[in-house]
Amino acid sequence: MIRIGILGYGNLGRGIECAIKHTKDMKLIAVFTRRDPSSVKILTSDAKVENVDKILNYQDDIDVLILCGGSATDLPKQTPEYAKYFNVVDSFDTHANIPQHFERVDDAAKTSHHFGLISSGWDPGMFSLNRVYGNAILPTGCDYTFWGKGVSQGHSDAIRRIDGVVDARQYTVPVDKALEEVRSGSNPNLTTRQKHTRECYVVVEDSADKARIENEIKTMPNYFADYDTTVHFISMEEMKKNHSKLPHGGFVIRTGKTGWENEHNHVIEYSLKLDSNPEFTASVIVAYSRAVYRLHKEGKIGAHTVFDIAPAYLLDMSAEEMRAHLL
Amino acid sequence: MIRIGILGYGNLGRGIECAIKHTKDMKLIAVFTRRDPSSVKILTSDAKVENVDKILNYQDDIDVLILCGGSATDLPKQTPEYAKYFNVVDSFDTHANIPQHFERVDDAAKTSHHFGLISSGWDPGMFSLNRVYGNAILPTGCDYTFWGKGVSQGHSDAIRRIDGVVDARQYTVPVDKALEEVRSGSNPNLTTRQKHTRECYVVVEDSADKARIENEIKTMPNYFADYDTTVHFISMEEMKKNHSKLPHGGFVIRTGKTGWENEHNHVIEYSLKLDSNPEFTASVIVAYSRAVYRLHKEGKIGAHTVFDIAPAYLLDMSAEEMRAHLL
Repeated sequence: MIRIGILGYGNLGRGIECAIKHTKDMKLIAVFTRRDPSSVKILTSDAKVENVDKILNYQDDIDVLILCGGSATDLPKQTPEYAKYFNVVDSFDTHANIPQHFERVDDAAKTSHHFGLISSGWDPGMFSLNRVYGNAILPTGCDYTFWGKGVSQGHSDAIRRIDGVVDARQYTVPVDKALEEVRSGSNPNLTTRQKHTRECYVVVEDSADKARIENEIKTMPNYFADYDTTVHFISMEEMKKNHSKLPHGGFVIRTGKTGWENEHNHVIEYSLKLDSNPEFTASVIVAYSRAVYRLHKEGKIGAHTVFDIAPAYLLDMSAEEMRAHLL
Repeated sequence: MIRIGILGYGNLGRGIECAIKHTKDMKLIAVFTRRDPSSVKILTSDAKVENVDKILNYQDDIDVLILCGGSATDLPKQTPEYAKYFNVVDSFDTHANIPQHFERVDDAAKTSHHFGLISSGWDPGMFSLNRVYGNAILPTGCDYTFWGKGVSQGHSDAIRRIDGVVDARQYTVPVDKALEEVRSGSNPNLTTRQKHTRECYVVVEDSADKARIENEIKTMPNYFADYDTTVHFISMEEMKKNHSKLPHGGFVIRTGKTGWENEHNHVIEYSLKLDSNPEFTASVIVAYSRAVYRLHKEGKIGAHTVFDIAPAYLLDMSAEEMRAHLL
């Protein structure tokens, strides 16, 4: 059994716990939290909840530590720090800082002879993989990534910070017309506005000025100003009833040409339709944790990404079975 | 430069030649043929055409030999044979015989310290990869593979063997209703007939009995009897004008559940829409040939499949660039 530790018990940590339940070769040992452990109720009856200050006591009991914190402030510190003591997996997703994060995890993991996998999940993660496969197969071509329809936590939070807003949920929606153009192989140049729209569901205080709030949302730089944005004011009841879930998904499309004179067109499309963004992200991370365990057993150390992992390492199945049944 | 040899110059061999042209790190050295070399005209001005009996003279000049023969009789002999002398890549696609083929190539390649990659292409190949990724991420789920719309060479050949038929082209067509059911996450059990239809375009001799030919097609065991089959009799002119290409494609869909009580549904879909089946297959093989070269340089030997190759090996890009731009 591959023994797993979870650091951080929010949506992602709970998703990891659920994904482990449905494997046959993995076992959750403990959840580590910055909160008072007695206040954290987990689902796995035979796993422990411990304060994070006890984590080093578990070095001999945990094969892979999964870091479930946020990319803004948690993971930049936690992943290099815990790579000193554990094999680690994270879902670091601040694209611009990936090179620096990689170097820091690599240094720590090489020094301690551990294996660290950064930026797993679906984007970065499965979407990144499909960009690599697409570029490798069709070197003469174009990449397109669309997200949604799904809830963007960052955009929802941005709306919540507006004066008079009680709660908000923002959906990123890919534009069908743009998707169709890309699929046609015409290699369109698409602006930000042409690729996605943003739909906002907002609960406001009784006395709030809706016109001002709608204007503040639609003109917010970086978040909404470059998009066609729709704002719906709804009641708290409707928010809870219709917008309490975290669906997401998206599309990675590679269009490219082959032939002596590039006379033939091809379209490779990878898409996800997810009821629960955190649970799917967790499911990817758990599969990669299996690979981390196996590669470390083979003596591999240092930082890696999904690009460095052969698919066979992800699956709880022998090479012979895989060749016989899935090839 | 990675130096490539091609054995067999049909549609696939020509596709390999075209794909190599559009890489920056690979070079075609020679095409080997069982025909009289003077009768074979290739497109690459600085590559040689040689009879296959000269192939062992090229052991020091070729890094990877790509085998472009058929799976029925060529590859079962050629891949183990040439793995004695070269790193080899093939697109062996007789699913039932993959385990035996793997063992034979593995024995030869291990003895000679070469690297052999079998069954690359898109199915087996990219579709297989997506089955492995899907099973690893969503262990509680179902796999679906649909093919088409595309030309099946085997089914076209079967029609051509009927008395009175001059030429034929058979398209395999996935049934939209079945695709939609699968995408809905309802995990339907689909019969052969519910998944695909078969459309046949047939040129017959002037005196032929069309009713008999249509009946022979529609009742042909294994090929057509289990499908809803449509037969269109057309002229040779129409065949040449509208049915001379080799488009193909298909869909690999994994539907699965996550959550403590499997309460959330997810759909992963990978699809291909290809103008030229042989050129796309060739493009996959060429990307994997790059991986074969690199892995052999690292000292890896023996038989492998696409499951054993980390994606980073496929792309002509540094690990740093890949992490910065594609992750």
